[in-house]
Amino acid sequence: MSWNSFGRLLRLVTWGESHGPAIGGVIDGCPPSIALSESDIQPFLDRRRPGRSRHTTQRREPDEVEILSGVYEGRTTGTPISLLIRNRDARSKDYAEIADRWRPGHADYTYDLKYGLRDPRGGGRSSARETAVRVAAGALARRVLAHLLGSPVTIRAAVVEIGGEAVPPGRIDLAAAATDPLFAPDPEIRARWEEMLDEARRAGDSLGAVVECVAEGVPAGLGAPVHGKLDADLAAAMMSINAAKGVEIGAGFAAARLKGSENADEMRAGASPDAPRFLSNHAGGILGGISSGQPVVVRVAFKPTSSIRIARRTLTRAGEEVEIVTKGRHDPCVGIRAVPVVEAMMALVLADHLLLDRAQCGERDCSR
Amino acid sequence: MSWNSFGRLLRLVTWGESHGPAIGGVIDGCPPSIALSESDIQPFLDRRRPGRSRHTTQRREPDEVEILSGVYEGRTTGTPISLLIRNRDARSKDYAEIADRWRPGHADYTYDLKYGLRDPRGGGRSSARETAVRVAAGALARRVLAHLLGSPVTIRAAVVEIGGEAVPPGRIDLAAAATDPLFAPDPEIRARWEEMLDEARRAGDSLGAVVECVAEGVPAGLGAPVHGKLDADLAAAMMSINAAKGVEIGAGFAAARLKGSENADEMRAGASPDAPRFLSNHAGGILGGISSGQPVVVRVAFKPTSSIRIARRTLTRAGEEVEIVTKGRHDPCVGIRAVPVVEAMMALVLADHLLLDRAQCGERDCSR
Amino acid sequence: MSWNSFGRLLRLVTWGESHGPAIGGVIDGCPPSIALSESDIQPFLDRRRPGRSRHTTQRREPDEVEILSGVYEGRTTGTPISLLIRNRDARSKDYAEIADRWRPGHADYTYDLKYGLRDPRGGGRSSARETAVRVAAGALARRVLAHLLGSPVTIRAAVVEIGGEAVPPGRIDLAAAATDPLFAPDPEIRARWEEMLDEARRAGDSLGAVVECVAEGVPAGLGAPVHGKLDADLAAAMMSINAAKGVEIGAGFAAARLKGSENADEMRAGASPDAPRFLSNHAGGILGGISSGQPVVVRVAFKPTSSIRIARRTLTRAGEEVEIVTKGRHDPCVGIRAVPVVEAMMALVLADHLLLDRAQCGERDCSR
Amino acid sequence: MSWNSFGRLLRLVTWGESHGPAIGGVIDGCPPSIALSESDIQPFLDRRRPGRSRHTTQRREPDEVEILSGVYEGRTTGTPISLLIRNRDARSKDYAEIADRWRPGHADYTYDLKYGLRDPRGGGRSSARETAVRVAAGALARRVLAHLLGSPVTIRAAVVEIGGEAVPPGRIDLAAAATDPLFAPDPEIRARWEEMLDEARRAGDSLGAVVECVAEGVPAGLGAPVHGKLDADLAAAMMSINAAKGVEIGAGFAAARLKGSENADEMRAGASPDAPRFLSNHAGGILGGISSGQPVVVRVAFKPTSSIRIARRTLTRAGEEVEIVTKGRHDPCVGIRAVPVVEAMMALVLADHLLLDRAQCGERDCSR
Repeated sequence: MSWNSFGRLLRLVTWGESHGPAIGGVIDGCPPSIALSESDIQPFLDRRRPGRSRHTTQRREPDEVEILSGVYEGRTTGTPISLLIRNRDARSKDYAEIADRWRPGHADYTYDLKYGLRDPRGGGRSSARETAVRVAAGALARRVLAHLLGSPVTIRAAVVEIGGEAVPPGRIDLAAAATDPLFAPDPEIRARWEEMLDEARRAGDSLGAVVECVAEGVPAGLGAPVHGKLDADLAAAMMSINAAKGVEIGAGFAAARLKGSENADEMRAGASPDAPRFLSNHAGGILGGISSGQPVVVRVAFKPTSSIRIARRTLTRAGEEVEIVTKGRHDPCVGIRAVPVVEAMMALVLADHLLLDRAQCGERDCSR
Repeated sequence: MSWNSFGRLLRLVTWGESHGPAIGGVIDGCPPSIALSESDIQPFLDRRRPGRSRHTTQRREPDEVEILSGVYEGRTTGTPISLLIRNRDARSKDYAEIADRWRPGHADYTYDLKYGLRDPRGGGRSSARETAVRVAAGALARRVLAHLLGSPVTIRAAVVEIGGEAVPPGRIDLAAAATDPLFAPDPEIRARWEEMLDEARRAGDSLGAVVECVAEGVPAGLGAPVHGKLDADLAAAMMSINAAKGVEIGAGFAAARLKGSENADEMRAGASPDAPRFLSNHAGGILGGISSGQPVVVRVAFKPTSSIRIARRTLTRAGEEVEIVTKGRHDPCVGIRAVPVVEAMMALVLADHLLLDRAQCGERDCSR
Repeated sequence: MSWNSFGRLLRLVTWGESHGPAIGGVIDGCPPSIALSESDIQPFLDRRRPGRSRHTTQRREPDEVEILSGVYEGRTTGTPISLLIRNRDARSKDYAEIADRWRPGHADYTYDLKYGLRDPRGGGRSSARETAVRVAAGALARRVLAHLLGSPVTIRAAVVEIGGEAVPPGRIDLAAAATDPLFAPDPEIRARWEEMLDEARRAGDSLGAVVECVAEGVPAGLGAPVHGKLDADLAAAMMSINAAKGVEIGAGFAAARLKGSENADEMRAGASPDAPRFLSNHAGGILGGISSGQPVVVRVAFKPTSSIRIARRTLTRAGEEVEIVTKGRHDPCVGIRAVPVVEAMMALVLADHLLLDRAQCGERDCSR
Repeated sequence: MSWNSFGRLLRLVTWGESHGPAIGGVIDGCPPSIALSESDIQPFLDRRRPGRSRHTTQRREPDEVEILSGVYEGRTTGTPISLLIRNRDARSKDYAEIADRWRPGHADYTYDLKYGLRDPRGGGRSSARETAVRVAAGALARRVLAHLLGSPVTIRAAVVEIGGEAVPPGRIDLAAAATDPLFAPDPEIRARWEEMLDEARRAGDSLGAVVECVAEGVPAGLGAPVHGKLDADLAAAMMSINAAKGVEIGAGFAAARLKGSENADEMRAGASPDAPRFLSNHAGGILGGISSGQPVVVRVAFKPTSSIRIARRTLTRAGEEVEIVTKGRHDPCVGIRAVPVVEAMMALVLADHLLLDRAQCGERDCSR
């Protein structure tokens, strides 16, 4: 029932706590005969791994993935693929205090209220550590897309805003962002962000961010009316990432400020009868919940990290009024390391919808 | 598999085309013994009904709902509730042209690509007419919430921005909006919006809008980690509404511009040990995917209506370059009539999560 | 959540009570472009309709189906198909007594315990009348199979045992059964069954039956490990039919009496490399949960009708010890009219699995 | 989408191949605060473990389970519970031959046809080894039942027939069967079965079996109409066990041979107004798909093991006509070791339905 799982046909259930022995996930419904090994997944985990710059948590996790099932002689067999990542650098003593005090803006309070108990070590289940599994699964989802379509879907995300400072229009270089430790799409804004992050870290504070993700090569026809809408599934997938507070498709909130005559993505004849040319992409590649063949564009807003070293007023579990200062090792801007997660969720949703579409409508001819 | 359905335990599947004989839906999983009759649902449908002001489509639909099953002697029996609404004022001749030409920004193109055919009359399945069924189901969902919690959850939405003109901060009166034909939460902005809408209509153009929805009385504890997140489900539910392009929870995109020290919703002791007092609500009532007991706040961006009377460049199904002017009867600002739909989706998601929570964690004591 | 629905990708939700205004269902996930009209469905409903012989209930229902959505110009559009069947001959006065007394062997007691209330008229939701909708949906499922495979799957069921009197081995003529009012596959046993049924009706008693269903033309490869097993889904589908108490695949319980060397279905080279010849079919066409290309064979045991005119000891809702004699119009042997329902469930499960298989493994080449 | 998973609210996905590094599963949706450790699960695994008698496979697996998540300080936290069992005694060389030859009656052929490839080592995914995970999850499901109901549900299964030799009526002692290595419910029949098993093993042949399972203490009200039927879910769950070919509820196929007047389970006043006394239990504790409060009784038919040492005619993957003799270590009667699996599936289905019922109908007062 999807408490901890994603997808309809390509299903991912994730499990594990930040400071338990391991985290992992199971992918069910994967098509057979796709070449897959740990080395196909590891590069994606490495991009999300903490410690790539001084602006991310100093926790040291190798994040080495083991494939425990579903692959035989280097190819998927169509049976469930179990992924396991051991936790190596859990320092649970740092968390003694937060076992008893609720960090404002964090899930401590709501987990306690819902379940009556929680694993407080490293944030337990609510830690962003869980997203490593999504990134691993996303690597597989990219393979599924390429295998079924015969050509890769290019999925690239970048940070486009930190602490209110946005990349100027026209300066987004997704290829550059892909290899940048901050996933910055422009060197100038990057320099500014570095300063802001250093300042926030010195102050013991944190910053929010906006991440943009673009998927190119998505065939027209993915999605369905009403609840099988591609944008609805993307919205859920993105909003399920830790610290996400907003999701936009295409022009998003800005579309609400356009006139109908401006927002319309006009069409002209394209290279082939089946591939029209759109004169703009305010829709972000989705019309009526179904992909149009244009690039799918999503933006996600991430709030600033809740775990900060500035004292905030809160309560103990016993109801006593206290202050809390969160020690431990935290990212000053969780939005940065969310970039590979956003890409992974995009890949998972697209691959799932490709299977759904194939079920109902058959093989999609990608030449059109 | 949720092509056309919502919910996990309180399930709604909707069916029907804009100009078919009827639209309707089936609600499965409703708790038994809830008082219900057509007259409990009709007022909600009346709020969504076209023709309440000159700013909505002039199609005349009484939108009378029939309950065909699942209710006996005025109470729900726990079996599926079938809802039927006849289409009375379908004028399909208006749509001859769009059968052959794709309206930019509309689902015509993607339906054709996906399914190879579509019912073009009135937009067929992609018409916002489908949302009438959601509104009817939302009325039931409100009943479910009140029945299970012993006290109503107050769910109210309002238009907070049209064509880029937003309600000034502190001027949102949700009670006033509830009965206003434009769902405007402030008389001053309302006057401005009227002018803008008249102008747009005269020009044959359309405007976008932002709708805000607040649910008060939601118990803490609804939601779950990862994919059962309350905000993820809300995001999907809202994004599934016709013309929605963005969703925010609480401070949303603005949270990405706050520092962690500003964004934290600090806590003080409240009236009872189980009900702390929060000093702000940037989180919009949801932490770690689980409700905190604060009001749940969602905002949804709606693009301007795609069907406009200004000529736009497009293609015919045969690939010929043409222009299109959409006649027929359309709302110049679809965001207005989306207000009751946003409320309905909020009610459906909350009721569903209340059942999910009851399944896993038992009866929730709402005194806390 | 499947309280009242079937299927994973080809989803059917049914609704309605025996004596409400109507019964119906919604089919979601149907592939587009399949030719469909009411006249394609009606013949199947006519086979299930009461009153085809003196051995079925004397309730007179025309069972005329209306398609309210999802079909445009005679072809499915890929959107939900809503089916409606009006109840015409409901005589609720017959049921005054059973509103208060629990009929032994019937769902009266358990519905009351579960929901706290029930619609007692004609058995309400627990009436076999609901199966008319399944039969209508099954007619569509056959179309889906033929459309996707390019050749029809022949699905035929017959009564093979009534009141303990089984058709002798080798006397099962499924083609003959198809048009017989008792769905008897052999004229000799049919004569014997007629006598037994007349005697039971005179005595006010009822008889059980076993129904066998064979699907020919099913491609190899449908199903999946563990819970997506074709036989598991068939078992659930058949056990969900009113009065079903047992399900067997292939040799079934008899297989438990065979030795491994006898039960093995040996293989020899067939007409083509992809189509081996099996020397027997104890497996009933399913190995490891996946179809083998042999005919899929299922048998279902139906208990005798619980509504009988012989007095049985029971309780009133108030707990008083009483006797009950069920009047009203009932089938003396529900197994007979279950035949088209068994066929429909077979068709629905196979079509669903064909879509599932296409999603994961692609188009299945049916020449092999 | 349930390719490899069970349950609606208490969800189990299993993964792993017979000769891979490990097998395991993830349980999602478990209520919080249930005491749980490896030692609660291990005894159930020990009962299923091979090597308890000379009549089961000689593969030596300690089947030690590790809990990797979802438990904190000895109690469930409401988050996913990951279970891991390492494979210790895999001897894959035994299986070189079957990589190329299809064993009649086995899943080799259908996996190859469906997926185009398979892991042949030890039967890969189709091996009964997967059921160890179900048994582990079943141990947790028993805990869930006891925790939610306040009193244990007693679930006991026994072999009631081997090779056509059934336990005589009235000789079924479930308590005795629980600790017997053959799960025999009667010492006399046990002796006979030992002889038959020895003979079959000497001949290199195998025998089928029937297993009966009885759950006592199940509250009335579990289940739902149409597809949420308790018996439909039990049928699917049982039929999903390796080698199962038939499922019966209560009198099952024998009910088809009774008259309505005989089959009716008459009712008299019981100890309390809410607990009537039934004079028989032909229904097997389920009426209209909903539990009645009587013991839930299920019987499952298991075919004889397909892996035998008697030569059978088959084909190679290249289509060549050959014979096959299956070496390796196999149970001569898989029905025996299925007993703990049948119990586990019963526990999982009941716990799932208890959660479903609590969602829709609230806490069930188990005193009635």
